[in-house]
Amino acid sequence: MTYCVGMILDEGLVFMSDTRTNAGLDNISTFRKMTLWEQPGERVITLMAAGNLATTQAVVSLLDERSKSPEERQPSLLQVPSLFQAARVVAETLREVIEQHGQGGLQSDSPFGATLIIGGQIAGSPPRLFMIYPEGNFIEAGEDTPFFQIGETKYGRPILVRAYDRGLGFEAAMKLLLVSFDSTVKANLTVGAPFDYHFYATGSLRAGPRGRIAQDDPYFQVISKGWGDALKDALDSLPEFHFEE
Amino acid sequence: MTYCVGMILDEGLVFMSDTRTNAGLDNISTFRKMTLWEQPGERVITLMAAGNLATTQAVVSLLDERSKSPEERQPSLLQVPSLFQAARVVAETLREVIEQHGQGGLQSDSPFGATLIIGGQIAGSPPRLFMIYPEGNFIEAGEDTPFFQIGETKYGRPILVRAYDRGLGFEAAMKLLLVSFDSTVKANLTVGAPFDYHFYATGSLRAGPRGRIAQDDPYFQVISKGWGDALKDALDSLPEFHFEE
Repeated sequence: MTYCVGMILDEGLVFMSDTRTNAGLDNISTFRKMTLWEQPGERVITLMAAGNLATTQAVVSLLDERSKSPEERQPSLLQVPSLFQAARVVAETLREVIEQHGQGGLQSDSPFGATLIIGGQIAGSPPRLFMIYPEGNFIEAGEDTPFFQIGETKYGRPILVRAYDRGLGFEAAMKLLLVSFDSTVKANLTVGAPFDYHFYATGSLRAGPRGRIAQDDPYFQVISKGWGDALKDALDSLPEFHFEE
Repeated sequence: MTYCVGMILDEGLVFMSDTRTNAGLDNISTFRKMTLWEQPGERVITLMAAGNLATTQAVVSLLDERSKSPEERQPSLLQVPSLFQAARVVAETLREVIEQHGQGGLQSDSPFGATLIIGGQIAGSPPRLFMIYPEGNFIEAGEDTPFFQIGETKYGRPILVRAYDRGLGFEAAMKLLLVSFDSTVKANLTVGAPFDYHFYATGSLRAGPRGRIAQDDPYFQVISKGWGDALKDALDSLPEFHFEE
């Protein structure tokens, strides 16, 4: 499993992904699930992946090869004129890889599918955020649904639904995401730290603050331990129920 | 889908279930998923069910018939000497029904399975709480896992994990459960109010406060609306993150 969140804020785009992959409960590894393509001053694109690791790594490698030798094969992520076209390229690559892996009727206990989040900005257009399905079609985040989750989405969703606000600053968004990730990690063994993040500032056309939050990161520890008490205080702050006599 | 929670508190056993059933998104109904058997002064047993409605209704009807004419068929829930035996009777009945419905290789888009929570007290023993799987085996709640959820368990789990405490009073438990149910209802259309509840006081050997919380119940409305703000305040109460310069 995996847990990734991408969200649109007034300030920019926010991405966070966990790094745990597992093939069975007794085979756990750490892999980066976030990839960044940057042409400073021109475009910044971030991709996060949930699903079959062989599939998602193949997709990223193919996209990478194409962007490194752009004359060789068209179109590349560094050449497409819009983020919509970037999503199409990624979706097409994903579909190819899934078809290839399943060719000749090959089957696996775990399906070859994957779900992706892609977001960023290309000079001349506002930032955009897309979610790509294993079938190769995709949807775009907007006013009504300003964030996407992929992977193990349920445990961490209630806090996002309640506390997300377009006006959140990057530092508040980091806090919110860490709470959402902590709730998920506490409930599902197949999601785990460290967490990769990238905060892209609208209009900057350069990669923003990015890095990795480890399980023993002091700030994450404060959040993880403090959230339980904060939740209890929140419950206490609500009025009491009284059974009718 | 369905959402039911059963928990052990020092004060007693707490049960809450939603009432929404659906056969497709365009066929939604309201059904009670909680059943109570009571012999005042001798035993109180509460059963909650998630899964195929035909299956769970058949299980309850069979158990009911047996407890009404106990000479006809043994054993009945009103005669078994312990809650462990009650769980066995229910599990056996569940397995029978599932086998019957699937007989002759009959299949359905939705499986015939169901998962149950049974809890209560029989004179001479402490209260006990069990979760019964569709396969007819079951597990008991204890010190380490003092509550069970069935159905759509994920959205409502983080708050239970963080705020559950064995020492909670019934009225605090009601508040906690309504927050957990509200988080679930807000995220999954197939879970819905009204919510049935039963609070069994340890040693009373009589049914305790029970009833139904409707969507427009004034207290539920206060909780549902207040929880969003309480969560935001909880987030605000945690220290801020600062990007390194």
